[in-house]
Amino acid sequence: MTELTHFDAQGRATMVDVSAKAETERAAVARGRVVMAPATLERIQAGTTAKGDVLGVARLAGIMAAKRTSDLIPLCHPLMLSKVTIDLTAAPPDAVEIEALVKLTGRTGVEMEALTAVTVAALTIYDMCKAIDRGMRIEAVRLVHKSGGKSGTYEAE
Amino acid sequence: MTELTHFDAQGRATMVDVSAKAETERAAVARGRVVMAPATLERIQAGTTAKGDVLGVARLAGIMAAKRTSDLIPLCHPLMLSKVTIDLTAAPPDAVEIEALVKLTGRTGVEMEALTAVTVAALTIYDMCKAIDRGMRIEAVRLVHKSGGKSGTYEAE
Amino acid sequence: MTELTHFDAQGRATMVDVSAKAETERAAVARGRVVMAPATLERIQAGTTAKGDVLGVARLAGIMAAKRTSDLIPLCHPLMLSKVTIDLTAAPPDAVEIEALVKLTGRTGVEMEALTAVTVAALTIYDMCKAIDRGMRIEAVRLVHKSGGKSGTYEAE
Amino acid sequence: MTELTHFDAQGRATMVDVSAKAETERAAVARGRVVMAPATLERIQAGTTAKGDVLGVARLAGIMAAKRTSDLIPLCHPLMLSKVTIDLTAAPPDAVEIEALVKLTGRTGVEMEALTAVTVAALTIYDMCKAIDRGMRIEAVRLVHKSGGKSGTYEAE
Amino acid sequence: MTELTHFDAQGRATMVDVSAKAETERAAVARGRVVMAPATLERIQAGTTAKGDVLGVARLAGIMAAKRTSDLIPLCHPLMLSKVTIDLTAAPPDAVEIEALVKLTGRTGVEMEALTAVTVAALTIYDMCKAIDRGMRIEAVRLVHKSGGKSGTYEAE
Amino acid sequence: MTELTHFDAQGRATMVDVSAKAETERAAVARGRVVMAPATLERIQAGTTAKGDVLGVARLAGIMAAKRTSDLIPLCHPLMLSKVTIDLTAAPPDAVEIEALVKLTGRTGVEMEALTAVTVAALTIYDMCKAIDRGMRIEAVRLVHKSGGKSGTYEAE
Repeated sequence: MTELTHFDAQGRATMVDVSAKAETERAAVARGRVVMAPATLERIQAGTTAKGDVLGVARLAGIMAAKRTSDLIPLCHPLMLSKVTIDLTAAPPDAVEIEALVKLTGRTGVEMEALTAVTVAALTIYDMCKAIDRGMRIEAVRLVHKSGGKSGTYEAE
Repeated sequence: MTELTHFDAQGRATMVDVSAKAETERAAVARGRVVMAPATLERIQAGTTAKGDVLGVARLAGIMAAKRTSDLIPLCHPLMLSKVTIDLTAAPPDAVEIEALVKLTGRTGVEMEALTAVTVAALTIYDMCKAIDRGMRIEAVRLVHKSGGKSGTYEAE
Repeated sequence: MTELTHFDAQGRATMVDVSAKAETERAAVARGRVVMAPATLERIQAGTTAKGDVLGVARLAGIMAAKRTSDLIPLCHPLMLSKVTIDLTAAPPDAVEIEALVKLTGRTGVEMEALTAVTVAALTIYDMCKAIDRGMRIEAVRLVHKSGGKSGTYEAE
Repeated sequence: MTELTHFDAQGRATMVDVSAKAETERAAVARGRVVMAPATLERIQAGTTAKGDVLGVARLAGIMAAKRTSDLIPLCHPLMLSKVTIDLTAAPPDAVEIEALVKLTGRTGVEMEALTAVTVAALTIYDMCKAIDRGMRIEAVRLVHKSGGKSGTYEAE
Repeated sequence: MTELTHFDAQGRATMVDVSAKAETERAAVARGRVVMAPATLERIQAGTTAKGDVLGVARLAGIMAAKRTSDLIPLCHPLMLSKVTIDLTAAPPDAVEIEALVKLTGRTGVEMEALTAVTVAALTIYDMCKAIDRGMRIEAVRLVHKSGGKSGTYEAE
Repeated sequence: MTELTHFDAQGRATMVDVSAKAETERAAVARGRVVMAPATLERIQAGTTAKGDVLGVARLAGIMAAKRTSDLIPLCHPLMLSKVTIDLTAAPPDAVEIEALVKLTGRTGVEMEALTAVTVAALTIYDMCKAIDRGMRIEAVRLVHKSGGKSGTYEAE
């Protein structure tokens, strides 16, 4: 059975050794979705023009969270990200789609940074809209693309 | 239309004033799920006994993240949590169910702390198993219970 | 000579004892200004409508920084802020005025939180506009109002 | 009109892509000033010898803050600084002058790190002296030198 | 056998519920020691007067670390400390003695904050002197006093 | 007399310049010990199988703390660690031995990261067992191996 790389032969958690890996350009794209009441989505869409930019706040929160990934995920390596962008798109009638792209030149991949950016952006949408819609749900958070590194390119969609 | 509480009348983001709110006991429960290949779940279940406790690491990561919620979510108030517990349960054939309970005696609710705990626990499962299953997805992250405070009790399930 | 409260009788730095202080409602207002080329201000003003909201990003950065004040200022007490708002106002032809209001119910004042919010908002404006104007300056960062606590109300302007 | 680099064509905030930039040695020097009552400056100058080293505490706070810049400024890249020094000089009768020098070998400049170091050192002086002088002001925080990278050397003074 | 309070009946890590505990004044004192070559201690003692205040830097590092205890120790509650002081005393010929006192009015004790302050102050001494003495050792870090809370007063020395 | 590298010629604290140092592979090993009542050690050993994995929690805390070293130790450089492992071994009748190994490819050594990992793992053991044994002590925290960099290899044991 393939081993989980974050445990050693005795089953002890470890931050794996990447010092022998090459510094290559790496990228990852993750996506997710916040599903909500149609009225909540309308409220968010109104807000982007005049009265409170929910998606703008969520975008910043996601970018900042990507930089904190190694603080949050116990066995992630600290990384010097070279690019983070987040797209938040209204998907009427009842969802916001989130996509995060993260790049770095380094020894380990940035999948976790992209996934962390998506989830924190989603949590921020929840926070800003929870007074009008407690039933929102975060759905379908997944990796859709990964490139660079020994394991090569991965495309999910 | 109900206003979003995190923006003022001009649509500017703000951390809302809770100083007039009463200090009451508040609790929140959030749930979510990581969906994966059946072989990945088997691997996690084997690990809890002998070779690497994925769920134990995810539980700790979630607890620690709950304490950092106000660092991650831009307009959340800093809070002194009085209790955090996280349950992670294998749901064969292909999922791990996550539930977080957070309590505090204070002036504002702890929904975001519970949701943050669930998502970071889920991200940690992804991180530890990604070498064997890149297709895992985080699904159905939602608030299921909230009590305390002026808005009273909320039950979703 | 009045003693500096952050040093003991031997001149050693200390976090002063506030445990005997009463929990009262406290507030502080700080102000500051970023002075820039007129063209830079025009660019910022254009951005608030259509192409990049510099002031919105700076507002969020200031709010988040207020929450981290005790991490940054060595002898500040950790505090549970109950409100933070930041106003950023274009002051043609060549400045942005920044005002931060911070409130809490607690044992020590929030002057440092208000001043930290102003300076980090100002630094963020610098960061976002530095590609077009390296000569921007942060000026006149000061406390303008303080209320609550034993020392009473202070008004500077 | 020159574009602000921290926004994309649709005006959305983004952490810009530096992966194609060369790793070069980069340096930045920033300066600022805390203006205070003459008696406050005398108190600080007395303290550096025997009863509480305000400038020593401010220096450390500034150095530590330089390392946290990417946590504070939303769109800053995380960087591995290779050198930080801060000079704090009494400027009688009523000011302390602050200068920070930051260096790194990397893909992006360190202006924000130098400016953050200056402002946090200034805020720390305010914190330590506020019990005797609430009217202190932080003035003239600006970049005075920058070298390395594609945009070349900048000298303001 | 007495149970470890940080695990539930199934052995899962948990942040224990303190919401039913009374808010009382609590204090803790911890001590530790850095043992070093006599020449290193002489160098530190010389530095406190003229050429580099090792103990002053270590004191600040310890105070700041006390505030971050709940970020470092996974199951510690976040706390609003009301006082932190650290004494560092040369103990010729070959040691520095460290004592930290922490106070708060709250629902849980501050032993971990005092112990964290001592160890980070000790690590900082190591860092500042390691170029001249790699053989330094941190010894005898322990709790010496605790008061407040249901379990009452504890005195070790 | 050899100079302390973290102070300049005037005795001012500084983060030393490592930009001219070569990027080499560096490693450090640190060790320490938590001494406790024999009954406490028995409780910990029982826990690793069925009722609460004290050593597993301490291992994670130590790994995460290694990544935060530059946040805690004022003059440490931020580093991108490439590997962290921690061994915790019961040493009957009354101690747990801790060993941390840290590696990186970079311009400065990782001694402080290894020592920080050991002490935070030790503090976490204290936290989890303090309800049954307040008299535990952290002892003999020291560097045992260092390699890479200009100063070459150091072996203490």
